[in-house]
Amino acid sequence: MTQDIKIIGFDADDTLWANETYFRESEQDFYNMLSAYIDSETLEKRLYTTEMRNMPLYGYGVKAFTLSMIETALSVGNIPSELIQQVIELGKAQLNQPVTLLQGVAKTLEALHGKFKLVVVTKGDLLDQERKLNLSGVAHYFHHVEIMSDKQPKDYEKLLKHLDIEPKAFLMIGNSIKSDILPPLALGCSAAYVPYETTWLHEVATLPVDNPRCYELASIEEVLNY
Amino acid sequence: MTQDIKIIGFDADDTLWANETYFRESEQDFYNMLSAYIDSETLEKRLYTTEMRNMPLYGYGVKAFTLSMIETALSVGNIPSELIQQVIELGKAQLNQPVTLLQGVAKTLEALHGKFKLVVVTKGDLLDQERKLNLSGVAHYFHHVEIMSDKQPKDYEKLLKHLDIEPKAFLMIGNSIKSDILPPLALGCSAAYVPYETTWLHEVATLPVDNPRCYELASIEEVLNY
Repeated sequence: MTQDIKIIGFDADDTLWANETYFRESEQDFYNMLSAYIDSETLEKRLYTTEMRNMPLYGYGVKAFTLSMIETALSVGNIPSELIQQVIELGKAQLNQPVTLLQGVAKTLEALHGKFKLVVVTKGDLLDQERKLNLSGVAHYFHHVEIMSDKQPKDYEKLLKHLDIEPKAFLMIGNSIKSDILPPLALGCSAAYVPYETTWLHEVATLPVDNPRCYELASIEEVLNY
Repeated sequence: MTQDIKIIGFDADDTLWANETYFRESEQDFYNMLSAYIDSETLEKRLYTTEMRNMPLYGYGVKAFTLSMIETALSVGNIPSELIQQVIELGKAQLNQPVTLLQGVAKTLEALHGKFKLVVVTKGDLLDQERKLNLSGVAHYFHHVEIMSDKQPKDYEKLLKHLDIEPKAFLMIGNSIKSDILPPLALGCSAAYVPYETTWLHEVATLPVDNPRCYELASIEEVLNY
């Protein structure tokens, strides 16, 4: 990996701690709650369509997800209102989930801390991301936390400007090829892809294996080998 | 006003543009929607109680407000599910409201721009605040936008550190005594209170009139007199 790297950006959800797993579990609970009214497969498609339609207005995060679940449930018709309250509780339970660091994260941050400036680069609900970082036990390793409404190239451009750094001095590490890898590469940064066990359909993309500034790691600790 | 000021922070909602008015209108629509099931006064109290209970988990903003309206409506019991969809639409309409600059804002920013570093200091939904700033037509006057999950003294402390500035060099301008005036004053900053036509019950507080670093202005333009 290039010697130019000065700042390392870490995606948070599914890179530092588990997140998508909780969404999958909530979705499964949601399908089970409504199983007497609609089959899981139809409901799954309908929920995804609702989430995509609401995305420009609601953005990412658990509150957006909860509102889309409610809207999807209402679209089924003739469901008791107690079910809607259960959906709200489902969302609240997800907002109260414990924060579980992924394997190797603490060790990796400890090793990189002091040698590089470390920043968290994440999208989602501001309050929820702050809560997770506070509970994570690794907040003190980070110089700066950037919570973005989206992770498009223009958002990374703003971040580089804000950090006052050249693209070649920035390495981004994350589990979403679409959000963490392709946009930084497009700007001339380096990027290391660390896959997570599950990826939201919305985030699925193909890794540009022929780009010399793109790395694929089996686990986050492998970054220490470079 | 002191000659030390180098950076001026502006609250956004109800300081740069109208916001609370839209919440009041949505609340009124919400009471009307449910008027066949519950009287406005009881519903108003119940909504506020629900919002305060949900605040630590949901934070500020329209999505949190929508979820609390839904929960309040469900607590009434025996309401048709179409009403819940109407509440969702109410929230979406609010997220799509036009951005109306308050009187004197453009003129004031134009006059201060270049003489001081201007920053936006706001809480609420990240995506929604970005949307409003982009639509406001005044985004280019600002050097930096800080969106916080809350406006406690510790949040302002982080901001000052981030801006790398002494408290005495920072002036905060806003319409909420509780969020925009008292915390900066507690840190040794200056603060200018510009009242808005309506204040959310949660934000009501008393102005410390005996503090020499505290100013009360009838309109935002008055800051130019100092």
